[in-house]
Amino acid sequence: MSAIEELVAEFAKLPGIGRKTAQRLTYFLLKQPREETARLARAVAAVGERVHACSRCGNLTEADPCGICADPRRDQGVVCVVEEASDVLAVERSGEYHGVYHVLGGRLSPLDGVGPDQLSVAALLARAQNGAAVREIILATNPSVEGEATAHYLERLLQPLGIGVSRLARGLPVGSELEYADGETIAQAISARRPVGRE
Amino acid sequence: MSAIEELVAEFAKLPGIGRKTAQRLTYFLLKQPREETARLARAVAAVGERVHACSRCGNLTEADPCGICADPRRDQGVVCVVEEASDVLAVERSGEYHGVYHVLGGRLSPLDGVGPDQLSVAALLARAQNGAAVREIILATNPSVEGEATAHYLERLLQPLGIGVSRLARGLPVGSELEYADGETIAQAISARRPVGRE
Repeated sequence: MSAIEELVAEFAKLPGIGRKTAQRLTYFLLKQPREETARLARAVAAVGERVHACSRCGNLTEADPCGICADPRRDQGVVCVVEEASDVLAVERSGEYHGVYHVLGGRLSPLDGVGPDQLSVAALLARAQNGAAVREIILATNPSVEGEATAHYLERLLQPLGIGVSRLARGLPVGSELEYADGETIAQAISARRPVGRE
Repeated sequence: MSAIEELVAEFAKLPGIGRKTAQRLTYFLLKQPREETARLARAVAAVGERVHACSRCGNLTEADPCGICADPRRDQGVVCVVEEASDVLAVERSGEYHGVYHVLGGRLSPLDGVGPDQLSVAALLARAQNGAAVREIILATNPSVEGEATAHYLERLLQPLGIGVSRLARGLPVGSELEYADGETIAQAISARRPVGRE
């Protein structure tokens, strides 16, 4: 296999990238200065070699513990539970969260053979039981069927510990249009409606 | 910048890949076995280091001359002129072409400062004038405004040499529907219509 074919095949393994896009990317790189290609190659190699899971929260990081766990300004008493490390990035983008995280490594999915043992549920329980350090756990799994089931499961598991357990609010996304919202989202937005104008 | 941020930034430089897709690709790679990531890194590095333009036709290749130029079964008397090396792949996919290629390296585009000197026009002329080796030149630039202009320019340049110059046929793409074809394509298909039923 030639170098070109090899790179096309490697790109085509990435999610959402078909053979045609893989070809387009390859020919794009071929037109770039050699230094650009080398930089991409080094960046790919680096994430493979240097990035690993934080031993405390499961976030992907080069340091251990990760920058968030190690940050003295973060509130170690509030733990936001997310499915994947990429969700940490999403919550961080909000700029509204100042606690720490716990990455489950997926969601419960019995059909795919993913039970509590395949996720970092035991580690979460250990963190929650560890003295009085944790005051609140925010369940921030995805608002999908499996994400909801995972949140329900954790809710029942954590409730007896006497720690505050909360879930992210559901409702209309900011900047969206009512006309295009699905019925389930509108139903959630109605049942969780908030009174206004009275203090 | 962390290794993750660096790879996201590098991916986001690729065409058609925004920041979100770059993040998705990065987190996908982070979940792959280390060997997979290393393979992609090597493949990227290899195209940067080993692939270069064929000195005869401009096709991208690891050998010189390229596999097509060096193939004794290819008809060296027919030269297909394309804009980019990726177009060679497209024509090869048809399985219908047994001549050789000439890669221009782009198309005429005065507004972007691309004139004949920025393309391998002189080299094409040299190939065409080189004895009686070349019998026919097929202009296979894109059927876009700039591709057409480039073909016109080459046509006028090559015609005096007494070599056959042809253009790819325009018409309805195979498998397409008339309803969705644009007017210009239908106009071309009508003016180039072919009589049927009479031999």
